[in-house]
Amino acid sequence: MPHAADSGRPTMRDVAREAGVSQSLVSIIFRGAPGASDATRRRVQEVADRLGYVRDESARSLRSARSTNIGVVFQTRQPFHSEMLDGLYTATVGMPNRLILSAVSEARDEAVAIRDLVSYRCGALVLLGPRMPEEELIELGGTIPVVSVARRCPSAGVDWVVSDDAQGMGLALDHLVRLGHRHITFLSAPVSPGGREREHAFQDAAETRGLTDEVIIARGGMTEAEGVEAAERILSLPELPSAVIAFNDRCALGVLDVLVRAGVDVPGEVSLIGFDDSQIASRKPILLTSVRQDPMSLARFAAERAVQRMSPEGPASEPRGTILPVTLTIRATTGPAAG
Amino acid sequence: MPHAADSGRPTMRDVAREAGVSQSLVSIIFRGAPGASDATRRRVQEVADRLGYVRDESARSLRSARSTNIGVVFQTRQPFHSEMLDGLYTATVGMPNRLILSAVSEARDEAVAIRDLVSYRCGALVLLGPRMPEEELIELGGTIPVVSVARRCPSAGVDWVVSDDAQGMGLALDHLVRLGHRHITFLSAPVSPGGREREHAFQDAAETRGLTDEVIIARGGMTEAEGVEAAERILSLPELPSAVIAFNDRCALGVLDVLVRAGVDVPGEVSLIGFDDSQIASRKPILLTSVRQDPMSLARFAAERAVQRMSPEGPASEPRGTILPVTLTIRATTGPAAG
Repeated sequence: MPHAADSGRPTMRDVAREAGVSQSLVSIIFRGAPGASDATRRRVQEVADRLGYVRDESARSLRSARSTNIGVVFQTRQPFHSEMLDGLYTATVGMPNRLILSAVSEARDEAVAIRDLVSYRCGALVLLGPRMPEEELIELGGTIPVVSVARRCPSAGVDWVVSDDAQGMGLALDHLVRLGHRHITFLSAPVSPGGREREHAFQDAAETRGLTDEVIIARGGMTEAEGVEAAERILSLPELPSAVIAFNDRCALGVLDVLVRAGVDVPGEVSLIGFDDSQIASRKPILLTSVRQDPMSLARFAAERAVQRMSPEGPASEPRGTILPVTLTIRATTGPAAG
Repeated sequence: MPHAADSGRPTMRDVAREAGVSQSLVSIIFRGAPGASDATRRRVQEVADRLGYVRDESARSLRSARSTNIGVVFQTRQPFHSEMLDGLYTATVGMPNRLILSAVSEARDEAVAIRDLVSYRCGALVLLGPRMPEEELIELGGTIPVVSVARRCPSAGVDWVVSDDAQGMGLALDHLVRLGHRHITFLSAPVSPGGREREHAFQDAAETRGLTDEVIIARGGMTEAEGVEAAERILSLPELPSAVIAFNDRCALGVLDVLVRAGVDVPGEVSLIGFDDSQIASRKPILLTSVRQDPMSLARFAAERAVQRMSPEGPASEPRGTILPVTLTIRATTGPAAG
């Protein structure tokens, strides 16, 4: 459980450290899932016994009475999460599985939102953009099947599904390069879930295209307000970039608001690309060119994976990471480079 | 229940019609709440027996095993609903009552969202901007305590809490009149929950201030897209209004986007006021003057009322309608009238 470490009782992490194996291997062993040798199983069990590690019994008893409900953790102020909720409801129409929602909100952090669902006897959790440290995800995944959406969790022993940022950045850069752009700024959000991956995807895509000397990675963010601040910094530069790729549509919207009011012609002077292709992007008069993540596909995968993991064969199946393809929706904010 | 009428079984509405009383009176009688004479109680019971009216037994048995959970119905794409969720979580911190969320979404209408909560043994429901017909609200209120937020329900036998539209329109008009505006357009959304009330509030406030001949009520809406359409209609007029009051902030945002891009100086040529003072309103560079509904107060009232109605004295207490005061947040979109 998220804060078991605070209680002073030995945790799964302690067992892993003492046994010299990864936490996900410990999790696999305690779940009785395949993927560990008998010798390792015995060794880990010995270490657990010696340390006095006990799995949370209340969580265990709950699990035995577990329902087929899918708990969903979302953030109240994220339009993309709203679209994911739409997608999850659509994906579960006709299924016997009910969605139980739990929001991360100003007064309610992620750990509380998750605890609530676990105690509610959900059979599996779908976490939208989880922010908890990886070791907490590992602990959680040892208690209940977890599907992480929009954040990769290769070593956490949980299922995850993300959009293909590398492909998305490739599509965005190819589109801009074809239009004659070379001085391209990426507004990054490295502390957001999946933020580092998207920054690396941009870097790699720029390198592959021989643009390394001409691109800039600058501070962006996940919110309109951060986009506004980034645009104000851009406007104070001696020269405007030829094109801007924002971390997401919300950031792009903040940039667009500032540029339009400053009298900068978009796309005449600066082209702008967002990420997500959320409903904002298609709204008149914004009409943002954006890398399209498909919330319906992400939601369908997440729901199906949660259901599979609740099936009799589920606990034994290995966690799966899935990368879904993206597309580029070209609208009014990109055009030929000036000059 | 919402669609009991479709089943061919007699409903509470049939009993009310046959007995010549209101549905809320029938609801009061079946709940055993005070507010009806013994003679009326007897007469309604006779009619119910004669018609073979049976209250939904599954709902009744669920009610007997009811929890203290508060079911919340919200819409996924409404930023104001997100703020209300924040408020409800804040209001219930430290309470034993848990919130169970159920979303109205593209694939999921209000009746489904409500049925899900009722079958989940919630002890009371908080409905954000409910859209169902009044007779269905009355039926629902006969089954489970209901608090309607942002929609008045005086005859539905349920609790409700709204913001004071009359006061809000008065504040908005006084502010504009003081700035010298007289040609003021209100963009209305009559089909939205509470939309008629807000239009009437505008009309009354304009009359009280002797502005009847100079104001216009035009088609607006609840969404940015509807605001965009309204602004395009306004731009095609021979003369721009001196000021525009939009139904809500989302509609105002659509108007603002169009005016800014058309090179109209806001507030130099046209002043603009929104309603809700949602987070959009305070965002740079939008800085919208807006009538502030207080989501925290609305949420606190709704939560407290739901808890009271689940208390032992709750079922006998009369439903209560509450109108909360509003304020006007003045920002950058209003200024002196031109000329």
